[in-house]
Amino acid sequence: MEKRVQDYTSEILEVVKSNASPAVLCQRLQDYHENDIADILEKLSPAERCKLYRILDMDTISDIFEYTEEADVVKYLEEMNIRKAAAILSKMDTNVLSDVLQQFDRSKRKIFIELLDDEVRHDIEMINSFDEDEIGSRMTTNYIVIHENLTVKEAMTELVSQAAKNDNISTIFVITASEEFYGAIDLKDLIIARRDHPLEELIVTSYPYVYGTDLIDECIEDLKDYSEDSIPVLDNDNRLLGVITSANIVDLVDDEMGDDYAKLAGLTAEEDLNEPLRESMKKRMPWLVILLALGMIVSSVVGIFEKVVTNLPIIMCFQSLILDMAGNVGTQSLAVTIRVLMDESLTAKQKFELIFKEMKIGLCNGGVLGLMSFALIGLYIYIVKGKTLVFAYAVSGCIGLSLLLAMLISSAVGTCIPLFFKKIHIDPAVASGPLITTINDLVAVISYYGLSWIFLIEVLHLAG
Amino acid sequence: MEKRVQDYTSEILEVVKSNASPAVLCQRLQDYHENDIADILEKLSPAERCKLYRILDMDTISDIFEYTEEADVVKYLEEMNIRKAAAILSKMDTNVLSDVLQQFDRSKRKIFIELLDDEVRHDIEMINSFDEDEIGSRMTTNYIVIHENLTVKEAMTELVSQAAKNDNISTIFVITASEEFYGAIDLKDLIIARRDHPLEELIVTSYPYVYGTDLIDECIEDLKDYSEDSIPVLDNDNRLLGVITSANIVDLVDDEMGDDYAKLAGLTAEEDLNEPLRESMKKRMPWLVILLALGMIVSSVVGIFEKVVTNLPIIMCFQSLILDMAGNVGTQSLAVTIRVLMDESLTAKQKFELIFKEMKIGLCNGGVLGLMSFALIGLYIYIVKGKTLVFAYAVSGCIGLSLLLAMLISSAVGTCIPLFFKKIHIDPAVASGPLITTINDLVAVISYYGLSWIFLIEVLHLAG
Repeated sequence: MEKRVQDYTSEILEVVKSNASPAVLCQRLQDYHENDIADILEKLSPAERCKLYRILDMDTISDIFEYTEEADVVKYLEEMNIRKAAAILSKMDTNVLSDVLQQFDRSKRKIFIELLDDEVRHDIEMINSFDEDEIGSRMTTNYIVIHENLTVKEAMTELVSQAAKNDNISTIFVITASEEFYGAIDLKDLIIARRDHPLEELIVTSYPYVYGTDLIDECIEDLKDYSEDSIPVLDNDNRLLGVITSANIVDLVDDEMGDDYAKLAGLTAEEDLNEPLRESMKKRMPWLVILLALGMIVSSVVGIFEKVVTNLPIIMCFQSLILDMAGNVGTQSLAVTIRVLMDESLTAKQKFELIFKEMKIGLCNGGVLGLMSFALIGLYIYIVKGKTLVFAYAVSGCIGLSLLLAMLISSAVGTCIPLFFKKIHIDPAVASGPLITTINDLVAVISYYGLSWIFLIEVLHLAG
Repeated sequence: MEKRVQDYTSEILEVVKSNASPAVLCQRLQDYHENDIADILEKLSPAERCKLYRILDMDTISDIFEYTEEADVVKYLEEMNIRKAAAILSKMDTNVLSDVLQQFDRSKRKIFIELLDDEVRHDIEMINSFDEDEIGSRMTTNYIVIHENLTVKEAMTELVSQAAKNDNISTIFVITASEEFYGAIDLKDLIIARRDHPLEELIVTSYPYVYGTDLIDECIEDLKDYSEDSIPVLDNDNRLLGVITSANIVDLVDDEMGDDYAKLAGLTAEEDLNEPLRESMKKRMPWLVILLALGMIVSSVVGIFEKVVTNLPIIMCFQSLILDMAGNVGTQSLAVTIRVLMDESLTAKQKFELIFKEMKIGLCNGGVLGLMSFALIGLYIYIVKGKTLVFAYAVSGCIGLSLLLAMLISSAVGTCIPLFFKKIHIDPAVASGPLITTINDLVAVISYYGLSWIFLIEVLHLAG
């Protein structure tokens, strides 16, 4: 029940279920966006879908499937004969096609790959040759390419002939006779150019490009900054392999941020609504086990201070307060640091500035909150717990001071740990919020109980 | 020190600093991507920048400024005379222009708006008339529009004449004689169409569109799904006001996810590296104050159980373990729920399924971790603390059971709270991780100490 900007669902359903002739049906359906038609597929019976497959041409069906969930595409393809399915697959955008093929089991996948057009099979094998974290694995081979020595008129003719098969036409890529990437032409410039204008003047030779083996998380920010419709992907010999389109970039940004988001919450990857229980457990368990182990360490450190608590049980009540605040401040610093590290690579000086800035914020916020706690908790102990004023404010002073100390150190920890991970080439996002929280628990426990021990028991000899 | 895909910085700097004639310089610079030229601006002296402003034409300068940080654009514009600055602003993409204007103080902004081209001024005023959370505030007026009654040839001519001023040409929008939005033509179809083909056949009349007053967070997922280069934005009379381009969508997705990410970490908004201390404090303080208040409530609840701790101080050591695990599980459920709510609007049945699923995961994970804790902590108490085996496993049994209970309830809380916020039309992302953690602290404290009290003290009469 997704809410749509406009809801064409019932309209399209009505068209499909009507008894109009195939020609009329086909013409009526052409008028809807493929994304909207894709949405109604699951609402049809298999028989109605088969009717649709017969009515629509292959190009339209493959376009529709590009907007359909991969798992559903597989289901629908299995409803038709295998040659037709392969023909439809051959017409799909290569990067979607490669995702769909992943959904089949090994033997079925092999059959489909053999039935694909030679050219498409070659493209798919090339895309699959890249690792999942390399940008080459996300490119599409759907683009227009021409040679550098053409005239404007020839280029236009070439564009028209290639446009039927490739629909990313807003940038035209230019290669040399030896197939090396030479530059790019903005379609707009080509369209407004006079026929006798030399093509050379239209070519931007310093157009941005990436290599297929570049890592996604290292080039995604740049790709975003250029805000171009498509950016070429080259092999190590500078030959054009494919392009990254703006739709690919939307997906990449979404994935990359979703991944960081999930990790911040202590999940190993983003989850789906319809995922089986076992999958979800697998994504959450690793962090929980690590955190349980760390939690046991914290507990044994608390155990060291059992004597403080036996002498002064009131201290124990505010343990969770100090621990939580330390964890919260650490998580804030962590999130800011991960985001900064994603956007830019910092110099050593900038890193120190970041740590210094975070500690300054920790100190200021800690100062404000420490004072608030000192005043309020003192009052609380004096009134509710019925202790003397001196006792109450000695304890709350200790709490305020520990809070300040814990927040200061936690800011530093929340900043340093992701910086350290980045330094040793581990994705800083794995330093999740829960991890930072547990580590800062240790800091907070030691500063809180340590301070209480020294200040309240050893110096002031309080008890009760 | 951003890492670039290719580093043209030094190359471009060399060109700018060379003594070549203006004509040669201009021609050489044309060859670089505006984004790369934008990056070197801050490395130039004001005098060198002035040289650049004289050499490059207005169009190129405005393109470069579109890739420059808004605050820097303001700085650079103030280096030139105000008429030139206004002329450059007039050529900028409207949605960037409106961001830049926001950076000026009120009086300066007024002067600039008066100096803008009439048409641009009108567009800016229209864009600014939308609220920040409405999609109209993010659109651009840079698009091609034609009337429906043209021939293919006329449409092509119209395109060529408009393309000089508007560079989002891949989709051509069609309006009726009464200016209502009629449909869209894919530029590819127009290019490959024969000149005598009727234009009508090329027009997709069920092209997706949004209204300017639609809320961004309600339509962003749909805009993403269509993966079109540009989607039209209409006013309430169905007239075309502007378009949302794929570059706008990348920014929107980035903003939207960045915002959720920040909120998950208990920040009120995303932070910049170069933000002043006061700004950063303001973004972090609100949550910290709320959390401190909640923390005090937790502390007073712990206070109720002081007697349990006095009788059985070992219980206190494992408080942080139970509280942290409850918080972690809650944060995981929260993150999953917020993400699910962002992608789809759920039916009541799906909501119950989600809560049920999360509780099932909480129960299963809690079962596994509860058993682990039971075994390990019992051993720890027996060996390290030197208690009897019965005592050790009675305590650790209580810990394991509380862990299971706390994890089960925390999963439910972490799912229900964002669902509840969504229901009362508050952004579910405000239910931040730290908030859930603190609320779950309460749950965990009560189940842990409550269980210990009943089971260990009232039933087993343990002490020590």
